[in-house]
Amino acid sequence: ALAAPALAQSQPTLNWRLASSFPKSLDTLFGTAEVFSRRVAQLTGGKLNIRVFAGGEIVPPLQVVDAVQNGTVEMGHTAPYYYFGKDPTFAFDCAVPFGMSSRQQTAWFDQGGGRDLLREFYRDYGVINFLGGNTGAQMGGWFRKEIKTLNDIKGLKMRISAFAGRVMAPLGLVPQQLAGADIYPALEKGTLDAVEWTTPYDDEKLGFYKVAPYYYAPGWWEAGAQLSFYIGIKEWEKLPDDYKFAIEAASYEAHVTMQAQYDAKNPPALARLIKNGAKMRFFSKEIMEACYKAAMTTMEEEASKNAKFKKIWEPYKRFQRDQNQWNSVSEYPMQNFMAARK
Amino acid sequence: ALAAPALAQSQPTLNWRLASSFPKSLDTLFGTAEVFSRRVAQLTGGKLNIRVFAGGEIVPPLQVVDAVQNGTVEMGHTAPYYYFGKDPTFAFDCAVPFGMSSRQQTAWFDQGGGRDLLREFYRDYGVINFLGGNTGAQMGGWFRKEIKTLNDIKGLKMRISAFAGRVMAPLGLVPQQLAGADIYPALEKGTLDAVEWTTPYDDEKLGFYKVAPYYYAPGWWEAGAQLSFYIGIKEWEKLPDDYKFAIEAASYEAHVTMQAQYDAKNPPALARLIKNGAKMRFFSKEIMEACYKAAMTTMEEEASKNAKFKKIWEPYKRFQRDQNQWNSVSEYPMQNFMAARK
Repeated sequence: ALAAPALAQSQPTLNWRLASSFPKSLDTLFGTAEVFSRRVAQLTGGKLNIRVFAGGEIVPPLQVVDAVQNGTVEMGHTAPYYYFGKDPTFAFDCAVPFGMSSRQQTAWFDQGGGRDLLREFYRDYGVINFLGGNTGAQMGGWFRKEIKTLNDIKGLKMRISAFAGRVMAPLGLVPQQLAGADIYPALEKGTLDAVEWTTPYDDEKLGFYKVAPYYYAPGWWEAGAQLSFYIGIKEWEKLPDDYKFAIEAASYEAHVTMQAQYDAKNPPALARLIKNGAKMRFFSKEIMEACYKAAMTTMEEEASKNAKFKKIWEPYKRFQRDQNQWNSVSEYPMQNFMAARK
Repeated sequence: ALAAPALAQSQPTLNWRLASSFPKSLDTLFGTAEVFSRRVAQLTGGKLNIRVFAGGEIVPPLQVVDAVQNGTVEMGHTAPYYYFGKDPTFAFDCAVPFGMSSRQQTAWFDQGGGRDLLREFYRDYGVINFLGGNTGAQMGGWFRKEIKTLNDIKGLKMRISAFAGRVMAPLGLVPQQLAGADIYPALEKGTLDAVEWTTPYDDEKLGFYKVAPYYYAPGWWEAGAQLSFYIGIKEWEKLPDDYKFAIEAASYEAHVTMQAQYDAKNPPALARLIKNGAKMRFFSKEIMEACYKAAMTTMEEEASKNAKFKKIWEPYKRFQRDQNQWNSVSEYPMQNFMAARK
């Protein structure tokens, strides 16, 4: 093949910085920005050069949206629900409690009107967003003791994502905020009872199974956590069309490869965890029903006082209901049958 | 934004023809090649220009692989299991009975070794393949009468895909080959008892619900039918790297958008079908178990006499088993719970 330079000399060379929310050690999360960046470089003859920085290298992991908004970096790669504290509406670009699956979320975003709704929301933050991967349904986390009834949740000190914490607080859960390095010793001492992280491939690295062996499913607060690429709108609008096309196409590729990597890596990781002492458990129907009810109450409460939230929640809810009905006659009966095969 | 021409004058202008297996009326299938072609043009400054032709315009819909192989066209977009008659191994790039779901198939292809295995197989046909979309789990088809027991399958004349026909023939099904236009009148007269097509959005256009109202699920022979872009290897190898990058990236985008379109369009289509008289039914556990057993027998038989088939079936089978085990503790319990919400 020829190796001619792709782009005319008339196109500008741009050196961008991308702030990731993730450490290099979480390679599926961090690596997705590298997949993206590599492809954009290839598609622009190396002229749009996006350097990826791990969480904390330029800005703290949970301040990526601020860094893009104030122009510290041109781009970010993040889990939008990290900005729940600014506005719970961010979570629709990632995961809401009892929300859509990975595939449903993609359908809503790409073909169901989600992209436009989210871009309207992000405009107030000076950001334009692109598909940036999905983890698939996450696990419900690691518990020191079995959780059998609603009573076992009362007083339970758990490190859990903000939205789930808000949902479960009325059920008696005591959400905890701990820095990453403090979690393991707190679990070991028993000053923390439980922690949720992501899926087996990531969870395995953190070793929680040694001190909190009960591994619960499903992680109903992250039924399909989508990640997002952020670009400062002013930077975006300055780009030549060719570079915009490259970014759009590379975003789809990154989106596919993250989910595929998690799917390929999670089964062997789960097998290793179980071999090493993790004990799989499922939240009881009583607990799931109570959490679902609490989640819907929380969603409707938020919608009643937050117009931006309501504007997305109403169509999201309808789309999800339709997806669940269709799923229940297509994928679901097929997977129901296949789940019993060994 | 600037609108400068993207590519240096040194790059060649190429006018390619892409033969689709699909008619323009099936817009999600046909349209996916247009999504691909449009993006490739954008990413190459209009220099790699791929014109999409509907099934039959250049070559018959089921001869796309031949057309690419013999150089009639540079590219194709097709459902690889159409070439089951040449070699059932093609089906691993599309769907095998009780095979992987859409997401699992993507994971296997992209991150589980599937791409390399399939490309090795395709080399004998002078073809290199790229992800080209997925329909998701298809329906089990339209039946004039209810199918309750295995006895109801005996003597049933059904238009069904080749692989499923081979699996079900030992159970007494009589697979039929009919041209598209002949199906409806045959169902109406009762010379045909059943037909399977794809999913509600496509099925609705064909009107089968008027003459064969029992709409069965799941379509276990197409648990996630993947489509494929074919390029003649000689044409591929002549391409500048920039054009190869454009094709690779655009293929991921087309892959995402097809599944997302089906997901967005199927729920309202199913609702309309039911309103217009379609009656949803599920294959009984007895029938599913018998078909599964027959399918596994067929797969192992083929593997025992076809080394190319065996070379892919063995790793495919292991990957699928691992995916099902992981699914059964993550997505599945979540969707199990959500399927009961209304």
